[in-house]
Amino acid sequence: MIDIVAGVDIGGTNTVTGFVTSDGEVIAEGRLSTADYAFAEDFVDALSAKIKEMLHGRDDLNIRGIGIGAPNANFHKGTIELAPNLRWKGIVPLGDMIASATGLKVRLTNDANAAALGEMLFGAAMGVKDFIILTLGTGLGSGIVVDGEVVYGHTGFAGELGHLTVVSGGRVCGCGRRGCLETYASATGLVRTVMQLLGDRREESILRDMKSSEITSRRVAEAAAAGDIIAAEALDQTSRMIALGIANSVVFSSPEKIFLFGGLAQAGDALFVPVRKYTDELVQPVFKGTFSILPSGLPEARAAVLGASALIWKEIK
Amino acid sequence: MIDIVAGVDIGGTNTVTGFVTSDGEVIAEGRLSTADYAFAEDFVDALSAKIKEMLHGRDDLNIRGIGIGAPNANFHKGTIELAPNLRWKGIVPLGDMIASATGLKVRLTNDANAAALGEMLFGAAMGVKDFIILTLGTGLGSGIVVDGEVVYGHTGFAGELGHLTVVSGGRVCGCGRRGCLETYASATGLVRTVMQLLGDRREESILRDMKSSEITSRRVAEAAAAGDIIAAEALDQTSRMIALGIANSVVFSSPEKIFLFGGLAQAGDALFVPVRKYTDELVQPVFKGTFSILPSGLPEARAAVLGASALIWKEIK
Repeated sequence: MIDIVAGVDIGGTNTVTGFVTSDGEVIAEGRLSTADYAFAEDFVDALSAKIKEMLHGRDDLNIRGIGIGAPNANFHKGTIELAPNLRWKGIVPLGDMIASATGLKVRLTNDANAAALGEMLFGAAMGVKDFIILTLGTGLGSGIVVDGEVVYGHTGFAGELGHLTVVSGGRVCGCGRRGCLETYASATGLVRTVMQLLGDRREESILRDMKSSEITSRRVAEAAAAGDIIAAEALDQTSRMIALGIANSVVFSSPEKIFLFGGLAQAGDALFVPVRKYTDELVQPVFKGTFSILPSGLPEARAAVLGASALIWKEIK
Repeated sequence: MIDIVAGVDIGGTNTVTGFVTSDGEVIAEGRLSTADYAFAEDFVDALSAKIKEMLHGRDDLNIRGIGIGAPNANFHKGTIELAPNLRWKGIVPLGDMIASATGLKVRLTNDANAAALGEMLFGAAMGVKDFIILTLGTGLGSGIVVDGEVVYGHTGFAGELGHLTVVSGGRVCGCGRRGCLETYASATGLVRTVMQLLGDRREESILRDMKSSEITSRRVAEAAAAGDIIAAEALDQTSRMIALGIANSVVFSSPEKIFLFGGLAQAGDALFVPVRKYTDELVQPVFKGTFSILPSGLPEARAAVLGASALIWKEIK
């Protein structure tokens, strides 16, 4: 018998389920369209059916539980609360619903906390007791690990470093406030910086020939690599903001490692080199040289499912 | 037999030792002049002699260990490292030295972490798993408790919220950088705000008749209570900065309670009312109403000794 955990990554559009072994191998995968289900009840039925289907004919598999990464998930309560990107409104007790439907142990947390657990069990954070992972995508998500445990806090929603206020009266944020870290330090933040620079500066730029809706962090990174001054400046300013977020996190929990994950982190050295330089400048001197800033050790395409499964594997191991 | 722990509060000028029972009663107290000892070895001898003297004739006492609160103390290593306010230079293995001299279990941490432990065992944080204490004195110290444990981090120096960068290019800080929270949100920060306002504004103020070296947070609070416009404005701006620090801490660990301690917290409602109002404005909406901001439950004069003793009592209990 092979012990496996179902790792479920619920996104606004799709839900991906993977069967993950204790070594972090994904031996089966299935998909659902999250957006097809107006009611959480129907989604739970569909997910249960999908898992049953994936188990069909595999008498060699022993499923130990279901770990779920989802937006606005509350680890303590197993609920999804007021998620703007999902059709299910209000507070949905998804954990209990799936446990009832399947008879299996279910755990739920948000995507970034799942990424932290995945990094700890299967990635570059094995054996690291104190670390932080920043996921640089549309927004900035974070998972914080203190003494080997993910920080969930009193509410279950701890680890919202994307909403550190870093610029008083700064950019408008989706949370309703201004100046949040993620309005600068994310793929979206990089594009916003490009737009501001295109207004502010007079240099030629390949980015002037794109619609703003076409500009992506990948295109900015490519333009910077090709010598585009505006793109390079935008990447530099974004790196500085990521560094400021790191410096303000380090005073809190003094991690040994900080992992950068997600679309923007794919820029590689073009991002890591300036982020490390600015972090060195910005961090409180007592912490200088006490931590390293590294790329995630999880493959981008598998990270969400691995992280979700790690919720259960961490309890079993 | 009465079980006791020696709680030792090492300051730059004086060292206070108290014998603390498991209920947080201080049944004996002794003092040394820290500044008299140029060498840590001599200080250790003097402290051991003091404890011996305090135990003399008290065969009813069973001493379980020595807990120490000291500046720049490293919990993991039991060392005091590069403390600017102590005469002992470099890295001093004070924990091991005192353990050798006395044969007792010794634990060491910084003042703010000790305050957090004191609050947890003997103060207003009994039974609270997730909280933060901010000590508002000359600087801003902090102790962070996550799931019932103080956060020490990889280095042992975690919890330096006074050095969150809150104003880019802001006030010069003792750490060598600019814009750290403690340059605004502390007793010293309040006085610096008064000085800037006296330059910026034209209103009459009783504070114009004091030397800047005479202005204290207490005098500012008194002037504000008497209707002084500059003093009231300074207290308001300081409250807003404390609130910003709280808002930026809440996204990290989502505490249930935040305690304010130290000289500035003595201002009572004049501080707590605006701090709560501004925190409500500044905090990420998902955390609004999920935590409370309260005064410390420890008596100011006993807090350091109680907190230091709690280092040992927490391990025993």
